Amino acid sequence: MKILIVNGPNLNMLGERKPEVYGQKTLAEINEFIKDYFRRVKLDFFQSNHEGEIIDKIQQAKNEFKAIVINPGAYTHYSYAIRDAIEACPLPVAEVHISNLAQREDFRRHSVVSDVCIGTVSGFGVYGYVLAVQALAHQLKRKSDDSAN
Amino acid sequence: MKILIVNGPNLNMLGERKPEVYGQKTLAEINEFIKDYFRRVKLDFFQSNHEGEIIDKIQQAKNEFKAIVINPGAYTHYSYAIRDAIEACPLPVAEVHISNLAQREDFRRHSVVSDVCIGTVSGFGVYGYVLAVQALAHQLKRKSDDSAN
Amino acid sequence: MKILIVNGPNLNMLGERKPEVYGQKTLAEINEFIKDYFRRVKLDFFQSNHEGEIIDKIQQAKNEFKAIVINPGAYTHYSYAIRDAIEACPLPVAEVHISNLAQREDFRRHSVVSDVCIGTVSGFGVYGYVLAVQALAHQLKRKSDDSAN
Amino acid sequence: MKILIVNGPNLNMLGERKPEVYGQKTLAEINEFIKDYFRRVKLDFFQSNHEGEIIDKIQQAKNEFKAIVINPGAYTHYSYAIRDAIEACPLPVAEVHISNLAQREDFRRHSVVSDVCIGTVSGFGVYGYVLAVQALAHQLKRKSDDSAN
Amino acid sequence: MKILIVNGPNLNMLGERKPEVYGQKTLAEINEFIKDYFRRVKLDFFQSNHEGEIIDKIQQAKNEFKAIVINPGAYTHYSYAIRDAIEACPLPVAEVHISNLAQREDFRRHSVVSDVCIGTVSGFGVYGYVLAVQALAHQLKRKSDDSAN
Amino acid sequence: MKILIVNGPNLNMLGERKPEVYGQKTLAEINEFIKDYFRRVKLDFFQSNHEGEIIDKIQQAKNEFKAIVINPGAYTHYSYAIRDAIEACPLPVAEVHISNLAQREDFRRHSVVSDVCIGTVSGFGVYGYVLAVQALAHQLKRKSDDSAN
Amino acid sequence: MKILIVNGPNLNMLGERKPEVYGQKTLAEINEFIKDYFRRVKLDFFQSNHEGEIIDKIQQAKNEFKAIVINPGAYTHYSYAIRDAIEACPLPVAEVHISNLAQREDFRRHSVVSDVCIGTVSGFGVYGYVLAVQALAHQLKRKSDDSAN
Amino acid sequence: MKILIVNGPNLNMLGERKPEVYGQKTLAEINEFIKDYFRRVKLDFFQSNHEGEIIDKIQQAKNEFKAIVINPGAYTHYSYAIRDAIEACPLPVAEVHISNLAQREDFRRHSVVSDVCIGTVSGFGVYGYVLAVQALAHQLKRKSDDSAN
Amino acid sequence: MKILIVNGPNLNMLGERKPEVYGQKTLAEINEFIKDYFRRVKLDFFQSNHEGEIIDKIQQAKNEFKAIVINPGAYTHYSYAIRDAIEACPLPVAEVHISNLAQREDFRRHSVVSDVCIGTVSGFGVYGYVLAVQALAHQLKRKSDDSAN
Amino acid sequence: MKILIVNGPNLNMLGERKPEVYGQKTLAEINEFIKDYFRRVKLDFFQSNHEGEIIDKIQQAKNEFKAIVINPGAYTHYSYAIRDAIEACPLPVAEVHISNLAQREDFRRHSVVSDVCIGTVSGFGVYGYVLAVQALAHQLKRKSDDSAN
Amino acid sequence: MKILIVNGPNLNMLGERKPEVYGQKTLAEINEFIKDYFRRVKLDFFQSNHEGEIIDKIQQAKNEFKAIVINPGAYTHYSYAIRDAIEACPLPVAEVHISNLAQREDFRRHSVVSDVCIGTVSGFGVYGYVLAVQALAHQLKRKSDDSAN
Amino acid sequence: MKILIVNGPNLNMLGERKPEVYGQKTLAEINEFIKDYFRRVKLDFFQSNHEGEIIDKIQQAKNEFKAIVINPGAYTHYSYAIRDAIEACPLPVAEVHISNLAQREDFRRHSVVSDVCIGTVSGFGVYGYVLAVQALAHQLKRKSDDSAN
Repeated sequence: MKILIVNGPNLNMLGERKPEVYGQKTLAEINEFIKDYFRRVKLDFFQSNHEGEIIDKIQQAKNEFKAIVINPGAYTHYSYAIRDAIEACPLPVAEVHISNLAQREDFRRHSVVSDVCIGTVSGFGVYGYVLAVQALAHQLKRKSDDSAN
Repeated sequence: MKILIVNGPNLNMLGERKPEVYGQKTLAEINEFIKDYFRRVKLDFFQSNHEGEIIDKIQQAKNEFKAIVINPGAYTHYSYAIRDAIEACPLPVAEVHISNLAQREDFRRHSVVSDVCIGTVSGFGVYGYVLAVQALAHQLKRKSDDSAN
Repeated sequence: MKILIVNGPNLNMLGERKPEVYGQKTLAEINEFIKDYFRRVKLDFFQSNHEGEIIDKIQQAKNEFKAIVINPGAYTHYSYAIRDAIEACPLPVAEVHISNLAQREDFRRHSVVSDVCIGTVSGFGVYGYVLAVQALAHQLKRKSDDSAN
Repeated sequence: MKILIVNGPNLNMLGERKPEVYGQKTLAEINEFIKDYFRRVKLDFFQSNHEGEIIDKIQQAKNEFKAIVINPGAYTHYSYAIRDAIEACPLPVAEVHISNLAQREDFRRHSVVSDVCIGTVSGFGVYGYVLAVQALAHQLKRKSDDSAN
Repeated sequence: MKILIVNGPNLNMLGERKPEVYGQKTLAEINEFIKDYFRRVKLDFFQSNHEGEIIDKIQQAKNEFKAIVINPGAYTHYSYAIRDAIEACPLPVAEVHISNLAQREDFRRHSVVSDVCIGTVSGFGVYGYVLAVQALAHQLKRKSDDSAN
Repeated sequence: MKILIVNGPNLNMLGERKPEVYGQKTLAEINEFIKDYFRRVKLDFFQSNHEGEIIDKIQQAKNEFKAIVINPGAYTHYSYAIRDAIEACPLPVAEVHISNLAQREDFRRHSVVSDVCIGTVSGFGVYGYVLAVQALAHQLKRKSDDSAN
Repeated sequence: MKILIVNGPNLNMLGERKPEVYGQKTLAEINEFIKDYFRRVKLDFFQSNHEGEIIDKIQQAKNEFKAIVINPGAYTHYSYAIRDAIEACPLPVAEVHISNLAQREDFRRHSVVSDVCIGTVSGFGVYGYVLAVQALAHQLKRKSDDSAN
Repeated sequence: MKILIVNGPNLNMLGERKPEVYGQKTLAEINEFIKDYFRRVKLDFFQSNHEGEIIDKIQQAKNEFKAIVINPGAYTHYSYAIRDAIEACPLPVAEVHISNLAQREDFRRHSVVSDVCIGTVSGFGVYGYVLAVQALAHQLKRKSDDSAN
Repeated sequence: MKILIVNGPNLNMLGERKPEVYGQKTLAEINEFIKDYFRRVKLDFFQSNHEGEIIDKIQQAKNEFKAIVINPGAYTHYSYAIRDAIEACPLPVAEVHISNLAQREDFRRHSVVSDVCIGTVSGFGVYGYVLAVQALAHQLKRKSDDSAN
Repeated sequence: MKILIVNGPNLNMLGERKPEVYGQKTLAEINEFIKDYFRRVKLDFFQSNHEGEIIDKIQQAKNEFKAIVINPGAYTHYSYAIRDAIEACPLPVAEVHISNLAQREDFRRHSVVSDVCIGTVSGFGVYGYVLAVQALAHQLKRKSDDSAN
Repeated sequence: MKILIVNGPNLNMLGERKPEVYGQKTLAEINEFIKDYFRRVKLDFFQSNHEGEIIDKIQQAKNEFKAIVINPGAYTHYSYAIRDAIEACPLPVAEVHISNLAQREDFRRHSVVSDVCIGTVSGFGVYGYVLAVQALAHQLKRKSDDSAN
Repeated sequence: MKILIVNGPNLNMLGERKPEVYGQKTLAEINEFIKDYFRRVKLDFFQSNHEGEIIDKIQQAKNEFKAIVINPGAYTHYSYAIRDAIEACPLPVAEVHISNLAQREDFRRHSVVSDVCIGTVSGFGVYGYVLAVQALAHQLKRKSDDSAN
């Protein structure tokens, strides 16, 4: 089982940007941290500051991956284009936010992608990625169990 | 007379995405379908998921084209940058939407580009592109008739 | 194929009212202009300033017509009664606006009938009626092709 | 005791329009259905798609009737003119809606006449008219009992 | 100089409806009261509960009258159709309200016709009609003085 | 047939609280008044000021009752928890309000339970309970007639 | 009979400020223009840019004047302090605006003083002051006629 | 390590209420399902329809538990009292929702407790409880590792 | 004279919860602190986290007490049920808040009970209870002085 | 200890203005009434209708006074300039309103100064000034006790 | 070239008020600081807490000055009267704010004067005055260069 | 000292687009114009229509530049992603707008980047870039003076 983890704009600055909010690990370190939790799930990582590249990536994902974990960064709050890409994608998608969006600026309180994702994990730090992968793996397993019957 | 047809994000997924809303033809098939309607109007097609590329294309269009038909996809609802590109463009621009936006999610009810376009065709499926090209051709002919006098 | 074209309040003043917005042709001239475009589609024209008469007309249309083109004038923005008449009518209905509503007063930005029409053509002047008739004819033909199979 | 039942726009289409919402009886059948419930109360029925005719009717009612049951159809949501007619009318007026407005479109959630009626019955199908007549009869009887003392 | 005075819905109920707000004179008495103030200005009176009839009347006024005084009653607050008729009318139009709208229900606080009228007189009782006629006569005289130079 | 009548907070104060709005009968007297109207329908009465107790009661009702009449008092306007209990309950539920909510404070204009009830009776005083019971009895009878066929 | 005419901030700039909106007469000329209309009514004029001075003036007016005409200028839209002064003042107060506020910026559409004035005259240029004085004189005469009986 | 799982109103109806949204397991079965995932974490379950009881429970939890998982049901959307209880509680609290709230009614889109919880898991079905327990356990372990240094 | 002091949810946590906002005294200590200020006024204290219990208490208070001081805690902001209980209660009620609500979260800025209380004291710490008792005692004394005359 | 009591616009009209709301005492009588309550606190009174004078007074107060009681009258609702003066002032400031603002017009529901004051007393009539002085004296005493330690 | 610098309410408290926001220099020191930057531009300084005085000053400025720099302090957010004075003034006006208004309270985010000024400088501390003077000097020079041609 | 000047979408069209708003100079000419003002500050220019490229550029700037001047064009109004990039960037950033945004369309009135910039210069034409560079240079000098002490 192969799952794609997509990170949106400025998440490549992790470790530098607001460490009191996002922690001190770099994105590369975080990716290693997540990988360490999973043996049977293979993870691929993609980060871009470009809305269009994120859409391209989501559109192509269905051939190679079984599911997507996405942290759209600031695009969470206005990119209806990413939203449409997720909605058009046949894979299950889980939304992750490192910080607890409800504790931050008003504009971060509304996600335009939540309703086209399966579910959301928010506020549990980078461990949220681990939870999201696990949730998707659980979901995929249940489905495959169902179809096995 | 040469007219440019610009399609925004996720419209390259036509045929796959929500066929009950957008129909079952792929973008390539739709482009052929539109072309078949016109003999004297030459059509060029451009699709991109990247907001910046759409802006670039609109900026360059004035040298090669007489008019633009645009379906900005989800960018319709928030890309003031595309809006400014259309406003700055000396060509007449017509806005097209395949589905009837008024029948869908709330966020699709507001277009930030309508007021800088000549007019809008919405809800008539892919045939809407045909109507828009025709409207622009009619408009250009009227103008050229005027200047011929 | 017979199609009804309904015009709402003050559209009988065309040619007199705001010619810079609505053009200089009278309603009678416009009706002739539209008719000239169609050979196989028979058109009937109805105009009224009375909300109730427009509703009556829509209710009776199903016996004589195959489709309706409607420009509800100012009723576009508040007549839920006309909206309900359109919704209750089994014929396909297309909404037309001569001017580009998005370029005008705020109250003209919201149409209460759009979501019960098939689609909308707005901003292409009186040529918009031609486009709407054509769109309905296309739609009816496709349906009849379907049922012919 | 004579009570007037006023039905607004498109209620003459009952039986045809959205039978899953409004039921399959025609307005004539419904009127018979209501009449059957009452022996001592005489009922008169009036339907119009014309706002002005409904206002005229309400203004004239006080000479012939003791009370009014009104289902203003879509006018419920914007006709301040009907509202003023009800407010100016010395008879008690009861508002009826066949469907449960709270389960439908947003614009149906607000009635501009409720606060000038005695009360409202909504969602109990055509039986709601029976309940409203009964409520008015109860009210009138109580008043007449009071004045008999 | 001939001026038309248009009264909207329920103003035929004056004297009966809310006398504490609108006074105890009937519409006929009020019309006499107004006439008595003017010798050189001829006044014609029109009242209707029908939005469409008011629009018809405004459209026809330009041949017979020099100006219009209008109290659109409840239509003040939502009839964009009457608004468009006034805007399309080449005559100067003055808006009158008997009561002070700012002291009443919230929905009476917004007039959709004010910005297409020359001016508004509100709250001075039926004497407001006298003031409005006078204002229009003053305006017309000034214009005619201007054109006489 | 047994129907449960649930009254929310402060309705135990009837007769004391705002008699000009709610009347002068105590809750016990009202319950007697309602009972007197029905022979074949058995009625049970429950009142509580506690949101949780009302929810408990609704959850347990399905075993003993065929339908519920509820006047949620002030909880009408914010108790999404009672709303969910009604929605989860397989019995038909009718909403009653003694006063006409549209004539009172703004916050009373919105009911969070209406759309999960079958219908609403508002403004007809305590006689509204009688109407609601009758409406439910009518509904249940129609259903049982249907299933008898 | 002595009436006070109060002009608010920037009305001392009349003739200089936006002559296309406010006309070309200076405040002194306008005052003369108004005076010329009245023989039996004595007029006093007061202008200030200071909110506090306008309040002081209104508070003192009751001893010397029978009524007040006020054009509060920009204070119209936010000075609840002037509003309270008018409300506390036992004299009848009429509100005047030279331009038609409904045709101007959004913030000019709301007056915080209208509901504590008897009535408003707006849009009839400086002639509006004449109308307002006349309206107050009419009102005072009616009252004195009443008390004479 | 002992963690408390609090379920709010109507969650005792799981298995019966909207199985297409909440699944077919009863609350007891779900609790077993969750327990099965953890060996080292001891879990206690509490459900109540009573806002006050939930507050009482949260206030008492600090003596017996190391963390709380809470699904406040409908109280999520308006119980500022539960919010204050969570905020006053020294334990880390995680918010869980079985369904994806962003896909449901508007009123479910806003949580008044999110910003006083550590984080939220929403949309992953009953497996969300497992994820939340795990997130809290991870958090507690990290803290205890920190303090061990 | 006996006065009841009602404290709402989480006020039993005083001393523990947010001491920088609410101070370090426990509720018991605060109650002692308040009592110490009064010799002739007898005080009774009631605290509950349960909305229903607070309503019950208010309903019963009229037999034993002359006035009520209430700090409804978070219920201040949404409990229309407590509001109705206060409104129905014949005793004078004073609202107290320990912290200055205007300095805190947005949701704390609106109180749904203020307009049914006599007055409010907010921001003066626990001394606010002393002020409120004093205000009520003053009020009761004035009334009794009045009735003694 | 010397405390300044500042009264804003129209409060010099007390006794004349709306006695049913503000009572029948004049400002001078009220000031005497307040003074009578305090022996050790010296009080100075200042009233102005001028926003600027109130700001000047607040700016100068710090040299002569230990605290300020302010009733900004209508300025409460929009004078951000007075708000900034209070915020910049090192003295503790208490806000007083004679009437219960929550029971009056909508615009009186919002105070722009509350969050820069220590606290607010509203609705207890002129006795509210006594309470506010007392609250400030209590506060100052506590501080001085603290610094004495 | 002579330029007037107008400072609004509380700016005379600079150095004392919120030094972390506004810096530690007094207004006199700031004025010296600004003057030091310019040789050819003569600067005059005016500060007032009185809205009316600021309006008076702006009205008189055109005779003595070539341009105005204004920091309206809190009046920025509501003084439509100052706005009208600026609009009526033939001189170019530049708006300055010492702090970055976008980083402060919500009410400071909207300026009612910006659209009648040439431009705005915000957030660059007292150096912003220097920039504004420079911008006006640049503008005036360009104009005078133009007219010199 | 090296400062980066970033221009957003459509600013490469300067000289062509709306010259009455933006002037007639091309972007290249403007860049030369700005450079000419500075000897000691080295300037680099970057323009892109691509949101992602602007973010990339801002992220990389810290190594080569001491400060950034940014005119985000239409992205000003919705690009929270650029906002986050600015916030994450350790360099001081100044926002510039050529036109006075307050004089244009409503959507241009709100900037999502202002509160993460040091300050904003708006409305002074292309000279605004000069002012912004100067402001940053002033700021940097002050800092370096500080650290030199």
